[in-house]
Amino acid sequence: MARRPKRSGLVAGIDLGGTKVTFGVLNAEGKILAMDKRKTKAITGMEGVLDRVVDGLERTCKEAGSTLRDLDAVGIGAPSPVDFDEGVAIHAVNLGWKNVPLRKLLEDRLDLPVLVDNDVNVAAWGEFTAGAARGWSDALGVWVGTGIGGGIILGGKLWRGAFHTAGELGHMVLQPRGGLGRRTVEEHCSRLAMIRAMETLISSHPQSRMRAVLPRTPEDGPIGSSTIAEAYRAGDELVLRVVDDAADLLGLAIANAVTLLSVRGVVLGGGVTDALGKPFVDRVRESFEWHVFPTTLRKCRVVAAELGDAAGIVGAAALARTHLIGGG
Amino acid sequence: MARRPKRSGLVAGIDLGGTKVTFGVLNAEGKILAMDKRKTKAITGMEGVLDRVVDGLERTCKEAGSTLRDLDAVGIGAPSPVDFDEGVAIHAVNLGWKNVPLRKLLEDRLDLPVLVDNDVNVAAWGEFTAGAARGWSDALGVWVGTGIGGGIILGGKLWRGAFHTAGELGHMVLQPRGGLGRRTVEEHCSRLAMIRAMETLISSHPQSRMRAVLPRTPEDGPIGSSTIAEAYRAGDELVLRVVDDAADLLGLAIANAVTLLSVRGVVLGGGVTDALGKPFVDRVRESFEWHVFPTTLRKCRVVAAELGDAAGIVGAAALARTHLIGGG
Repeated sequence: MARRPKRSGLVAGIDLGGTKVTFGVLNAEGKILAMDKRKTKAITGMEGVLDRVVDGLERTCKEAGSTLRDLDAVGIGAPSPVDFDEGVAIHAVNLGWKNVPLRKLLEDRLDLPVLVDNDVNVAAWGEFTAGAARGWSDALGVWVGTGIGGGIILGGKLWRGAFHTAGELGHMVLQPRGGLGRRTVEEHCSRLAMIRAMETLISSHPQSRMRAVLPRTPEDGPIGSSTIAEAYRAGDELVLRVVDDAADLLGLAIANAVTLLSVRGVVLGGGVTDALGKPFVDRVRESFEWHVFPTTLRKCRVVAAELGDAAGIVGAAALARTHLIGGG
Repeated sequence: MARRPKRSGLVAGIDLGGTKVTFGVLNAEGKILAMDKRKTKAITGMEGVLDRVVDGLERTCKEAGSTLRDLDAVGIGAPSPVDFDEGVAIHAVNLGWKNVPLRKLLEDRLDLPVLVDNDVNVAAWGEFTAGAARGWSDALGVWVGTGIGGGIILGGKLWRGAFHTAGELGHMVLQPRGGLGRRTVEEHCSRLAMIRAMETLISSHPQSRMRAVLPRTPEDGPIGSSTIAEAYRAGDELVLRVVDDAADLLGLAIANAVTLLSVRGVVLGGGVTDALGKPFVDRVRESFEWHVFPTTLRKCRVVAAELGDAAGIVGAAALARTHLIGGG
């Protein structure tokens, strides 16, 4: 792709999720000039989603007082293992995509250089370059939301893995003899797992405020992080039990990852972490310190992400800047 | 340290263990010209051990038709987390060493450039450069013996970790609520763990041939890998149960490590693996495939190490050659 002769310093970051897309336009100093969100509408198919991505990006550029033509590059995080060198989204379950050449498709539509990486990788990279892990030599990012994902940064670089799947902490197995569906970290600690546990236990907690929303039918859709967080803060016994149990198991999984990787620190992000806040992060850290290989690795820091929803766009833009322009 | 003006191409590798030291002298093509072993005699203290190391190395040089002065460099693997840049063995439990500046101590005694790394790192590096993982882009090495250690090679380089402890797969926690002493991979799958399990179960297996050697007193010392392997091959029910259970749990731990790291393959080495051979490796692989994040990562190969006892000296010599001389 031919580069524009003159550079504006403007780079866009896109965080493409299963339910929503977040757009950002950042200047050469990494400052967010404009940020926007819209629904993904995966049901409209790949062409429909790409149309919405291009349209949303144009709108965000406008909010930043610029146009697509002013951008130097675009970085995008996709909810899929990504072949980074080829720019291909290998399998985006929530989008129904298999082997989608996302880089090429977007470069053709945008006439701009595009970088594609996994969504949690770009979020972890955002925290590493401009958030909670700023200045660290290496880091493990763990994102807790609908599911659980991870990103690994070693020696100042994202490690993406021989099979483009590195960092899949959510798919580590917690229960040696656990049956299918109740075996992995994600199946015990994600938002959906917490809701399932509450459904199982609700009958023995008749006082729980979750009775108002449980049981769920498929039409109800899952319960959001903010609903869980409100009940957690209100001291609802059922929610406290379920969330604390998930935090304990997540801390163990993170301890195992750090015992293996020996990284300087861990950043906890994602919708569940952001909504539950400090008590959740503290509980995860406590379990981490109890289970990690003693004693040196207890020095490994476990902290909350700082960038919230912006981690993905910041990281995607920073990666695009580094790889496509060669700047900071 | 001043380099010798003329190079012989000869490099020595040393594998320093808690009970024995292995020495090798290799030529420029990586061929082992001489290999030797002696007891470590950790009880003689650090000075005593270093004397034996220097003496053993001199003897091995002699067997190779050379002298210490002919060597270009020496690499040594120590049973300890190692500060690679400083050449310091941080905590060698089996030797009773803390923060021993092994590189400096050996350079002073040998008047040669010395490289120090962790023992499992150098063994994994041996398999990576000249053994089962030859030609791979990345690898996880897992060594099963008295304890369990691991080495991580990513993008063609050893990843040593921010705290010099990367690869400690043996200290990953298998049982979320497991008590101290029966919690980690090492506490379930190492040789010592297998022996403990046999001691617990021997009374309900009166026909087992292990009755001849169990229970043990501290004076008896632990049972060797070859004794376990003989009973395993003979179909001893107690030993089959214990070894297969350990293999299943080890396969799960390796699956978790690969789910996180997304490496091309895994090399299984160490005294227990070497003694038990193919049936053990097959069983570990089966459990690995059952537990690893499906389906891509099932392509990750799990194979037996090829170099046996020589992995450490080969890897230590290769690392010394690369880092101290700049050759292959």
